[in-house]
Amino acid sequence: MTYCVAIALDEGLVFASDSRTNAGVDQVSTYSKMHSFEVEGERLFVLLTAGNLATSQAVINRLKRDLDDGAEESLATARHMSEAAEYLGRLNREEQEKHQEALTKAGFTPDASFILGGQIDDEEPAVFMIYPQGNFITTSPHTPFLQIGESKYGKPILDRILMPSTSLADAARCALVSMDSTMRSNVTVGPPIEMLVYRKDSFAQDHYLCLEADHPYLLELKRAWDEKIREAFCELPAFAWEAAQSGRRRGTQVSTKPHRKKRKPATKARG
Amino acid sequence: MTYCVAIALDEGLVFASDSRTNAGVDQVSTYSKMHSFEVEGERLFVLLTAGNLATSQAVINRLKRDLDDGAEESLATARHMSEAAEYLGRLNREEQEKHQEALTKAGFTPDASFILGGQIDDEEPAVFMIYPQGNFITTSPHTPFLQIGESKYGKPILDRILMPSTSLADAARCALVSMDSTMRSNVTVGPPIEMLVYRKDSFAQDHYLCLEADHPYLLELKRAWDEKIREAFCELPAFAWEAAQSGRRRGTQVSTKPHRKKRKPATKARG
Repeated sequence: MTYCVAIALDEGLVFASDSRTNAGVDQVSTYSKMHSFEVEGERLFVLLTAGNLATSQAVINRLKRDLDDGAEESLATARHMSEAAEYLGRLNREEQEKHQEALTKAGFTPDASFILGGQIDDEEPAVFMIYPQGNFITTSPHTPFLQIGESKYGKPILDRILMPSTSLADAARCALVSMDSTMRSNVTVGPPIEMLVYRKDSFAQDHYLCLEADHPYLLELKRAWDEKIREAFCELPAFAWEAAQSGRRRGTQVSTKPHRKKRKPATKARG
Repeated sequence: MTYCVAIALDEGLVFASDSRTNAGVDQVSTYSKMHSFEVEGERLFVLLTAGNLATSQAVINRLKRDLDDGAEESLATARHMSEAAEYLGRLNREEQEKHQEALTKAGFTPDASFILGGQIDDEEPAVFMIYPQGNFITTSPHTPFLQIGESKYGKPILDRILMPSTSLADAARCALVSMDSTMRSNVTVGPPIEMLVYRKDSFAQDHYLCLEADHPYLLELKRAWDEKIREAFCELPAFAWEAAQSGRRRGTQVSTKPHRKKRKPATKARG
């Protein structure tokens, strides 16, 4: 499994990815799922990958070869980020088609998904998620992030914190918290965690981190978040029935009496 | 979709369920997914349901009919909670088989899952999750909760907070926070939220709440949690690169320099 997230902010872009790849639980390895392509002072792309490893490696190779060969169409020729996403979607579909029949017969799927983010010239930085079928979506002010892979465990914190005006550093921290929640709940998502911060109009990586499981910052972030979540939890409002229990400090007391009609569970049988 | 969670604690049991049922996005209705069966002073069962509504309603009816008819096997005759879970699993399979062929032809599935919790006589209270195939699992000290339906969004907070020694009230709050995170991320999980707290050896419902979306306690809990999560987030340790930014209050500063080797993203092509 995989977990990757990319965030589009007023200040720039943030990318994070785990590095665990598995083909069954007894075949687990570490592969980077973050790849960057730069044309100095002119364009920068960051690619995150999920799904079939053979497909995503083949697509990355095609991207590199097209760049090296000065091909008619490549990441260097795309005029817009959406054009680059379309090109990537086509490569993805083509690579999948090569092995579709054989894989399907064997009960596997060649499906791969990508997140492509970056900036071309004076266009706004942008992020796209490319589906296995080659079509793609981008972010919106209400949903300034895109996820691929095991996305559910880590989504609530992104929903709560991220807005286009969030700072790059806060968004990077939010992505790490989201990654931590995912790793706790799904063992097929694992370190090292790669993190890349891109500041708008810089056409270079602002910050790149590769955090192993025992990296001091990651350990401190996990410890602090765990402690603060527990503290926050302890301050939640008490139920009315707890009022009698003295010695219990609680932020607020709110009545838990149903304000409409009192309902009992639908079925109540007595034997 | 559905989200139900049951928690087994030293002090007793906590159950929570949403009430949204949908057959496609244009056919959404409200059904209780929580059902209780009591034999006064002797046994109490709480049932949570997920999956095909026709199957779960049929199973509930069978449970009630067997109780009313004084059947040879019923929730009133089970000697152990695991025996009750086995009986429920058999009813579930039988009800599914009745319509399996017709539903499969039409592209539907009769699958339903259940959580059955409760206490029989002087046995320890227990919770079981019953799969569509009729087999079942219970909790453990390391995993004192079971979930059915849309379980991923709400799992991280349960993982962080719950232990067998957690109080009934804290576990009930934790279940509500878990439910709130799930409802934010998946619109097919919705209010009212039902919550039932069972205190060990009481053989009666300790507390039952049915919280509509605008219930004062639910609103206050959501507001408080959102605020406290943001506060907690703001206190997370800063990255080393933020050190230069003055005027920014941060709890701790931890070096983000990789402590092993410095790694760059795997691919770095220049066009």
